[in-house]
Amino acid sequence: MQWMRFDYQGAMGFGVLEGEQVRCFQGDMFGAAVATQDTLNVAAVQWLPPCRPGKVIGLWNNFRAAAEKNGWAQPTEPLYFLKSPGSLAAHLAPIAVPASYGGRVAYEGELVVVIGKTARAVGVRDAAAHIFGYSCGNDLTALELLHSDASFAQWTRAKSFDGFAAFGPVIETDFDPATAQLRTLVGGRERQNYALSDMFFSPLEMVSRISHDMTLEPGDLIYCGTSLGVLPMKAGTTVEVVIDGIGTLSNLYG
Amino acid sequence: MQWMRFDYQGAMGFGVLEGEQVRCFQGDMFGAAVATQDTLNVAAVQWLPPCRPGKVIGLWNNFRAAAEKNGWAQPTEPLYFLKSPGSLAAHLAPIAVPASYGGRVAYEGELVVVIGKTARAVGVRDAAAHIFGYSCGNDLTALELLHSDASFAQWTRAKSFDGFAAFGPVIETDFDPATAQLRTLVGGRERQNYALSDMFFSPLEMVSRISHDMTLEPGDLIYCGTSLGVLPMKAGTTVEVVIDGIGTLSNLYG
Repeated sequence: MQWMRFDYQGAMGFGVLEGEQVRCFQGDMFGAAVATQDTLNVAAVQWLPPCRPGKVIGLWNNFRAAAEKNGWAQPTEPLYFLKSPGSLAAHLAPIAVPASYGGRVAYEGELVVVIGKTARAVGVRDAAAHIFGYSCGNDLTALELLHSDASFAQWTRAKSFDGFAAFGPVIETDFDPATAQLRTLVGGRERQNYALSDMFFSPLEMVSRISHDMTLEPGDLIYCGTSLGVLPMKAGTTVEVVIDGIGTLSNLYG
Repeated sequence: MQWMRFDYQGAMGFGVLEGEQVRCFQGDMFGAAVATQDTLNVAAVQWLPPCRPGKVIGLWNNFRAAAEKNGWAQPTEPLYFLKSPGSLAAHLAPIAVPASYGGRVAYEGELVVVIGKTARAVGVRDAAAHIFGYSCGNDLTALELLHSDASFAQWTRAKSFDGFAAFGPVIETDFDPATAQLRTLVGGRERQNYALSDMFFSPLEMVSRISHDMTLEPGDLIYCGTSLGVLPMKAGTTVEVVIDGIGTLSNLYG
C-alpha cells in the first residue's frame, strides 16, 4: 500500500494512493487506521510529507561505489547525523535557496526507511517488523558549510535548512530494497542511477544497529545515504528522485 | 516563574513551582496557559522534563576557558549538533548505563535555553522575545564513540543514548545568564564551577544565528556547551547541575 498525507481545503488528512484517487483513512497511520467512505482526486489535494517524524537520521558513506571512488574506508558501523525534523519538504513543495548561505547546495537522492513500531535494541531478524515502509528522499546539503570549520564537521547545520529534507510522495509498505534501483533526475537529466543493494548497511542492519544506540519511534526516518552522481544544483532546477515501486519525489529548488 | 511538568497519579500536568507547592495550569505552556484551582505538593508528583522539545541542539566549544585549556581555536560561528529528542531524562530520573557501549561516559553541566516562540532569522535584539526561559542540563557523552571512526565524528550518536539529555527541574522565565554561575557536583563533590558569561556566543547570539540556519519552534532546547571540569562518571554516581536562580538538576547515573 502507498500511504500519503495531504491538505484538502485546509484540513490535514491521510490515506492510500490508488492510481489517481486517495482512499481516505482516520486514526493512526502506524496503528489503528480505519478507512472512511471518502475518496479524493489526488489532483485536488496538496501533498504533505507522508508522516511527521520525531527524528530524521541520515547516513554518511553507506554505498560501496561512492566509498571506492572517494577513497573512503569501509565503515565498521553506520555513521550518521540528525537533520532537523523541521527541514522536511513535501512532494511538489518548492525548496527555498537559504537566504543566509550563498554557497553551493547539492542534491542527494536516497532511500528513506520509515519506522512503524518502537524499536529498542532489536536484532536484525526482528528489524523488518519495526519498519512501516519506504519512501524517496532528497538529502540536500550546503557543501561549503560541512567543513568550513576545521575542528568540527557541521553535518547537522549543512543539512537542516528549512526544506533540506525532501520526503515522499508516499510510504510504500510493500517494497524490497534489495532489488530496486534509485535514479535522480536534475532538470530532467539523469544524474544518479544506483542499485540500493550496494549499501554497506542494509535497512534491516541500520534499524537494528541504530536501535541499540537510541530508541526509534513510529514515524522516525532513516535516510540511507547516497551513491555516485551528487552535484550542486542551480536555483530554478527541478530534482526528481525516482525509485521504482515507490514513485517519484519532485521538488523545485529555488 | 518556574514552570515544571509532572506526572500525578498517571496523568501528565504542568504548573508553576512555588516553594514546596505546584500551582497547576491548563492549556499551552508557551501560549495560553490558564491557572486551575488545583495545587499539589511537589513531593507527591513525579518530575517530567519541563517540556517536550522537537529539537535538542547542543553546542561544542562555546566557553573561552575550555577552549584555552584544550587549545581549541575561537569559533567564528556556533558549532552545534543535534541530540535525539528521545534522549531526555527528567529531574530525579535514573540514567541507565548504555547496554551496547562499554566505554567511558562523561557528564557535562550546561545551561539550557528553551525557545518560546517560532524563531526564523531573528536578529540578536529580537532574540530575547523568542526565549521562554532557562533550565539546567546534563549533556552526557559516550567519549570513546565520538572519534572512534577517524573519518566521521559521531556527535549525535555519542550524545543520544536514552537518558543522555538530562533537563530540568524547571524552566525559569526570569533569569539573566550574564551574571550566573553553574556548578556540577559529582557524588557530592564539586567538579565544575564556571561563569555563564564566559560563553563565546551568548544565548541571544545563539538563538539569532541558529534561527538563520533552521526555524526554531516553541519547546526547542539549546544546550549551551560546557566548560572545564568534564570527567567520566562511575556507575552509581549522582550528578547535580546547579544554577543559582534556576535550581538543581539531579540524576543518578547507573
